[in-house]
Amino acid sequence: MATVKNKQVVLKRYVEGTPKETDMEVQQSSRSGLTAPKGSSAFLVKNLFLSCDPYMFRRMRQYYGSYIPPFVPGQPIEGFGVARVIDSDDPAFKPGDIVSGTTGWEDYSLIRKHEQLRKIDPHLGVPLSYHLGLLGMPGFTAYAGFYEVCSPKKGETVLVSAASGAVGQLVGQFAKLHGCYVVGSAGSSQKVDLLKNKLGFDEAFNYKDEPDLDAALKRYFPQGIDIYFDNVGGYMLDAALLNMRVNGRIAVCGMVSQHAHSDHRGIHNLYNLISKRITMKGFLQSDYLHLFPRFVEHAVEQYCRGNITYIEDLCEGLDSAPAAFVGLLSGKNVGKQVICVARE
Amino acid sequence: MATVKNKQVVLKRYVEGTPKETDMEVQQSSRSGLTAPKGSSAFLVKNLFLSCDPYMFRRMRQYYGSYIPPFVPGQPIEGFGVARVIDSDDPAFKPGDIVSGTTGWEDYSLIRKHEQLRKIDPHLGVPLSYHLGLLGMPGFTAYAGFYEVCSPKKGETVLVSAASGAVGQLVGQFAKLHGCYVVGSAGSSQKVDLLKNKLGFDEAFNYKDEPDLDAALKRYFPQGIDIYFDNVGGYMLDAALLNMRVNGRIAVCGMVSQHAHSDHRGIHNLYNLISKRITMKGFLQSDYLHLFPRFVEHAVEQYCRGNITYIEDLCEGLDSAPAAFVGLLSGKNVGKQVICVARE
Repeated sequence: MATVKNKQVVLKRYVEGTPKETDMEVQQSSRSGLTAPKGSSAFLVKNLFLSCDPYMFRRMRQYYGSYIPPFVPGQPIEGFGVARVIDSDDPAFKPGDIVSGTTGWEDYSLIRKHEQLRKIDPHLGVPLSYHLGLLGMPGFTAYAGFYEVCSPKKGETVLVSAASGAVGQLVGQFAKLHGCYVVGSAGSSQKVDLLKNKLGFDEAFNYKDEPDLDAALKRYFPQGIDIYFDNVGGYMLDAALLNMRVNGRIAVCGMVSQHAHSDHRGIHNLYNLISKRITMKGFLQSDYLHLFPRFVEHAVEQYCRGNITYIEDLCEGLDSAPAAFVGLLSGKNVGKQVICVARE
Repeated sequence: MATVKNKQVVLKRYVEGTPKETDMEVQQSSRSGLTAPKGSSAFLVKNLFLSCDPYMFRRMRQYYGSYIPPFVPGQPIEGFGVARVIDSDDPAFKPGDIVSGTTGWEDYSLIRKHEQLRKIDPHLGVPLSYHLGLLGMPGFTAYAGFYEVCSPKKGETVLVSAASGAVGQLVGQFAKLHGCYVVGSAGSSQKVDLLKNKLGFDEAFNYKDEPDLDAALKRYFPQGIDIYFDNVGGYMLDAALLNMRVNGRIAVCGMVSQHAHSDHRGIHNLYNLISKRITMKGFLQSDYLHLFPRFVEHAVEQYCRGNITYIEDLCEGLDSAPAAFVGLLSGKNVGKQVICVARE
């Protein structure tokens, strides 16, 4: 059987502190042939698009007490991807099927647990890579987080942090469709421009230009904030707490500022939870999977009508993956960070 | 008309930092007679018991952005009290009525807003002073916070901080009646003893004896905490966050450690909200007043059956009030802090 090259991005060692490109290695391995072994019930996929998501950083640490196990050093990094089935010993998949779910950061992955990927319809009218963003985990996080956790009402005021990111850009657009006033914070003037001029946010600001986040929020929310969709934690959360309205809701979706260990100051304004009767709720999209079909229908419909748009930051090739991942944690990406492994 | 002495406890000036006894002054004033002016629609009460509550500290500051206005320097401090009506130009009240609600820290108070006091039944079988604790704002806070905010289920594990305090002692007893496993934290061995031997907590510990609160909580909650009823904020909240179970709930009731400015470290463990899908909710008992009649019925019934008990720390006389209030903020009190102004 012919030997086939299989490029892989592996974790070299467990990470302490902020991950660096050198914590990962792109290596050329090989596999004998492009078949799934008979009797294995496995199937072989060719990876097309891979997703960089902030939660993956936590899997790079040996001990982190979270909800999924750490990566295995020396093995390809695992993450969400879109792939094409090449060979299959699993009756549920056949060559040519397009699948989405958990795969490896490599050209080809042999999938032994068939529940980790599901077939997707390539004819929905959305780019395949959007199954990692708009129609994937980030999109569903925005959907479940906004509609289920935030309990939004028409006319309410909404703050979204990391607003041009994979999740934030959709939260803002869902909120606009719901009749809310939406302000986004982001980390560059280019992102602010996108938020205001492409994604339809009412207002947006570059938090790096604001020496006083409390004052910035008072400027954009003179009547206060009903809903804060928090993707970052840290200083922005503390400033938002000062500006919440009575019966406000904070959906705690991500704490990038804590992932990246850039913020050791702690949160000081939680006493506002009492006087303003704020509900602060952490959530995982995986607790809402019963809503996934309804979400896909909603997102595809709104996208095809032109009511929502989705911004991706596409990198070409597995070689670009370590830099893309590290860049994501410092906000270099503009929009959802995706690695294109192969164009077909 | 005879001049009558009226001792008063006044706020001398707005407080910055931690209040001291010298921020208050006990002064001898006088009033002409013990009557409510004709045509005033007011009524005059003789104060019997006054309540020291931590929230009052916030009213001693000029600017604090909270839900009730600050005290007025030079005027008697306002708080909850139990009083007897002496004279009345208000048809809703007559001499001899026992009332509970907001009154002044003085011997006699002329009440112009009749909604600030309500008549109570002195024959319920509970001491009159209990209308400031068991049947008052603290008791109702425990009731609304535990049953409405914490959504408790039989068999769940419950942590209560400031557990022997006015609110905490009832939260723990309600939780035990509900079939929960309850652990209380308090600040002295005497309080720990009361929690275990008089109030029926399953376990209790002195947080001052625990150099590592995280380790302490892991000892008492090897399977984690379902409900944390938080009366203190600060270090205990941070340690509880590390030990919450999936779908845990934190009722944020008080942040004494922040009131007292003793904790500037901030909260660092909020990322647990996400991985454990924790709901953290601040609340005010005043949002649940529709439940007040049901609460009184429940509390009186359980008290009269001997299922719950209530511990008070009674100080004698208005002269003792400043020290009692300051002591409350540092945890000197054992049980609900009450000032007995007059025994009848």
